[in-house]
Amino acid sequence: MPGQRRVGRSTWSFEQEVRIISSAAVAGPMEGEGRLGECYDFIYNDLYAGQETWEKAERKMLEDAVSIALKKADLTNRDIDVYLAGDLLNQNISASFSAKAVGIPFLGVYGACSTSMLSLSLAAALVEAGYARYAAAGVSSHHCTAEKQYRYPTEYGGQKPATAQWTVTGAGVGIVGIREQGPRIRYATIGTVTDRGIKNPFDMGTAMAPAAAKTIQTHFEDTGRTPKDYDLIVTGDLAGVGHPITRELLEKEGYRMGDQFQDCGLMIYTSEQETFAGGSGCACSAIVTYGHLLEQMMKGTYRRILVVATGALLSPISYQQGEVIPCVAHAVAFEMN
Amino acid sequence: MPGQRRVGRSTWSFEQEVRIISSAAVAGPMEGEGRLGECYDFIYNDLYAGQETWEKAERKMLEDAVSIALKKADLTNRDIDVYLAGDLLNQNISASFSAKAVGIPFLGVYGACSTSMLSLSLAAALVEAGYARYAAAGVSSHHCTAEKQYRYPTEYGGQKPATAQWTVTGAGVGIVGIREQGPRIRYATIGTVTDRGIKNPFDMGTAMAPAAAKTIQTHFEDTGRTPKDYDLIVTGDLAGVGHPITRELLEKEGYRMGDQFQDCGLMIYTSEQETFAGGSGCACSAIVTYGHLLEQMMKGTYRRILVVATGALLSPISYQQGEVIPCVAHAVAFEMN
Repeated sequence: MPGQRRVGRSTWSFEQEVRIISSAAVAGPMEGEGRLGECYDFIYNDLYAGQETWEKAERKMLEDAVSIALKKADLTNRDIDVYLAGDLLNQNISASFSAKAVGIPFLGVYGACSTSMLSLSLAAALVEAGYARYAAAGVSSHHCTAEKQYRYPTEYGGQKPATAQWTVTGAGVGIVGIREQGPRIRYATIGTVTDRGIKNPFDMGTAMAPAAAKTIQTHFEDTGRTPKDYDLIVTGDLAGVGHPITRELLEKEGYRMGDQFQDCGLMIYTSEQETFAGGSGCACSAIVTYGHLLEQMMKGTYRRILVVATGALLSPISYQQGEVIPCVAHAVAFEMN
Repeated sequence: MPGQRRVGRSTWSFEQEVRIISSAAVAGPMEGEGRLGECYDFIYNDLYAGQETWEKAERKMLEDAVSIALKKADLTNRDIDVYLAGDLLNQNISASFSAKAVGIPFLGVYGACSTSMLSLSLAAALVEAGYARYAAAGVSSHHCTAEKQYRYPTEYGGQKPATAQWTVTGAGVGIVGIREQGPRIRYATIGTVTDRGIKNPFDMGTAMAPAAAKTIQTHFEDTGRTPKDYDLIVTGDLAGVGHPITRELLEKEGYRMGDQFQDCGLMIYTSEQETFAGGSGCACSAIVTYGHLLEQMMKGTYRRILVVATGALLSPISYQQGEVIPCVAHAVAFEMN
């Protein structure tokens, strides 16, 4: 029998020193003007990023993030054995087309906005187990490509309720390898798909909150850790409506989540920026994690953090057919040691 | 440093006895009347499978395939630590909704029609390395959901050229674990995204042929194997137009592919069934592999086979924006030993 690398049913335990060798976060203009603007490796002046369509702009952002991460790691694409990536666009085209550009063996993944930690969990597993020497995990999202695909033509300017969220424009990439220094990936908790009967696509936060609570609870049960073991527990994009629900659900289960329980969707924009309940999208948790949180770990601000990326797995078709919104959350525990 | 589990850059070598514990293939009515109709675990009488929409029918097929595979393995969903699944629908909804039904920690994957071997490769890796005791890999496709999403409203009955293919209706699932008997998963070769400038979405076979050739060549280079080492090398869904191109490309590289080089898209229907160049879709390679080929291995017909699932990673948007069709192929080597 092979060595056991799981604790409980859902959590992968990385005993090797699997670390983030380098990471990159690139962001759109609005994100650049947000609270974490100084943390990003590159900020585009406009939503086209020099391309002729928004879709091509999103892809360019993902390609740029890969290039920057490679450069920061002093590696080339030939050094990376596998590239795991996903995005929100139909048929994962940002990821697939970026994979053609980077020329690395490619595994497409899809978990809606949870894809940031889905791709990173698999990258860490493949590196620890020796299937890859280095792996790159990446995601992208773009406000305009998401709007036109999921909602209304972007130019139409449809009204939205306060529960709606603002899709983050940008891309984040992490390069994983075995090293002695840097933020270490200690655990990954793989989520189970849940729903609580929510059907409103303009309130993703409420839909995703139970999935986040469930994965966080599973993480604690599997690892024996408690909220106090983390300097920061951050959900991906529950934002102003969903995040308090997750807190409440966890408190009902006996977990006292303190001030260190935060949300990337609430960290990314200023209160002056009109983003309804807050940020969302694959890039939301990705640029906060890869641009800001890991840097803060390196600086000593945080010793242990848990990033819980949440995803709403609906489609316009499933919504139109009256289906509920199935949701999932995947969590990755990082630590400096 | 962890144990090396890769040969070359792109091939994962499974040294443990990672095997298919059980598999299931369910199929639509037309596939049931095809050449391999006797091999499927269940054949639906109509394209709705008792559901009110085609999308719900596709999902039901995937859920049924999981249930049948579990039953054949004498396992329950609680025994499976991770479910890796994907399909062709926007936002992977067949996979995501089926994941809610089965209640297994879920990793969504997307590689278009290559998803069958993508999901299985990852399942094998996670089991061999000890992240999961048992893993389930599954895919689905449905002729009518694919037509309406990728092409024209199904009822419109748009004319097609002879290079077009017929999306297979059905689902296939494999359950992977460490066992002493059964078809063993020996290698997985992860594809790199390629294109040869093909833009015609009604000729996927030509677009995908170079990706298949590249992955097969990489597999031979990485493992030191040759075409003669396999009793059967089968591509996923290149069909009548693409398969001969792959053969030609490989022969130019010095690989003599004999009669044992075949294609699932050419095996699935009878010549009387009007399917243009042949079958395609995630379920094409899946139901041929999980329904027919593994059974033939158990019966002793084949000792070693290589399944090379091919995927065209385009979207209607990328096509409309004048982009080429990026393609990928992932290969899994099975053997009885």
